[in-house]
Amino acid sequence: MPNPPRPHGVRHGARGQARREEIVRAAMEVIAERGYRGASLAAVAEKVGLTQQGLLHYFPSKEDLLIAVLTMRDEWDRGDRVSSDGNPMTVAQTVGVVEANAHRSAIIRTFSALLGESVTEDHPAEPYFRERYRRVRGEMAATLRAQWGDRLPSGLTPEEVAPLVVAIMDGLQFQWLHDPEGVDMPASFRAFLRLIDPEALA
Amino acid sequence: MPNPPRPHGVRHGARGQARREEIVRAAMEVIAERGYRGASLAAVAEKVGLTQQGLLHYFPSKEDLLIAVLTMRDEWDRGDRVSSDGNPMTVAQTVGVVEANAHRSAIIRTFSALLGESVTEDHPAEPYFRERYRRVRGEMAATLRAQWGDRLPSGLTPEEVAPLVVAIMDGLQFQWLHDPEGVDMPASFRAFLRLIDPEALA
Repeated sequence: MPNPPRPHGVRHGARGQARREEIVRAAMEVIAERGYRGASLAAVAEKVGLTQQGLLHYFPSKEDLLIAVLTMRDEWDRGDRVSSDGNPMTVAQTVGVVEANAHRSAIIRTFSALLGESVTEDHPAEPYFRERYRRVRGEMAATLRAQWGDRLPSGLTPEEVAPLVVAIMDGLQFQWLHDPEGVDMPASFRAFLRLIDPEALA
Repeated sequence: MPNPPRPHGVRHGARGQARREEIVRAAMEVIAERGYRGASLAAVAEKVGLTQQGLLHYFPSKEDLLIAVLTMRDEWDRGDRVSSDGNPMTVAQTVGVVEANAHRSAIIRTFSALLGESVTEDHPAEPYFRERYRRVRGEMAATLRAQWGDRLPSGLTPEEVAPLVVAIMDGLQFQWLHDPEGVDMPASFRAFLRLIDPEALA
């Protein structure tokens, strides 16, 4: 069996975990460049100085690597979404998320590309996005209800407004990725919140 | 030179134009299945009963075919967007567009997939989407101004609300493609219009 050069030693435990995270971040970069279908394990391996065989030691398949990318996003989301007391985040905190997103275009690009690809036939990220949207709409409705009760100032229910908040976040990301100078994503999101409640969030 | 079977004769003029449109529609289907990067000219050719060589007679490259797909969408948009008197469409007409979209998931799938891919590196559809968004935001601001003047009932300007209308349309399409039973796209869009003006569009 050939013994390819390994610039970094492969170990398990904490070192192995750090290496896995490094690979997942490299995969996110490759997806942002070429999409998931266009991504190759060879390109990911090259970014982290591994052979393709060495990469398969950490992630046995391309789909395993995709799942790790999506799981990492979920972990970030949990960090953003749940305050220290375990309650869902407040509406004001959603502004913080959008502001943070405006400083992490690489991550937003990866997930916008995956979202687009996920509507194509038999895409492995499709179940993830379907479930994610259901969950996020539910969480957003809880956030809206905690702030305004069963009717928002407009007379709409939290369940009517929740998909709109999610749609605004996704839709603004595409416009902003295409025209970062022309689209102020946090300012647009705050304008949307003024539509929901001109008083509370002016 | 081999003479491959041609189930349909290739001709120019009206027949050639119909054939081009048939090819563009087949390309849209293949993009909805596999994305643009994943689409092959061979797959498009097969759908319309042409050899790949026969297809190149109509579209010399894959990128030419992409441009034809995007141009066809612009032509549909012009049909939707401009009323018979040449003015930009009214806000009420935007509801009609969203309702029509809810009955053409194949087309929405193609363009949602292309939108997602277009944020990846050096994608040939990137300039199209960047320009399209600028134009559509401008047209939407004109539509809002025609209905409400320089300030909407919320106090926001047409230029502040225009990117939100566009974002809602795009974002709802992704949620609806992933969960057509769980997301009522036209109802959600009408709910958004009630946020803009609870009186005029209730």
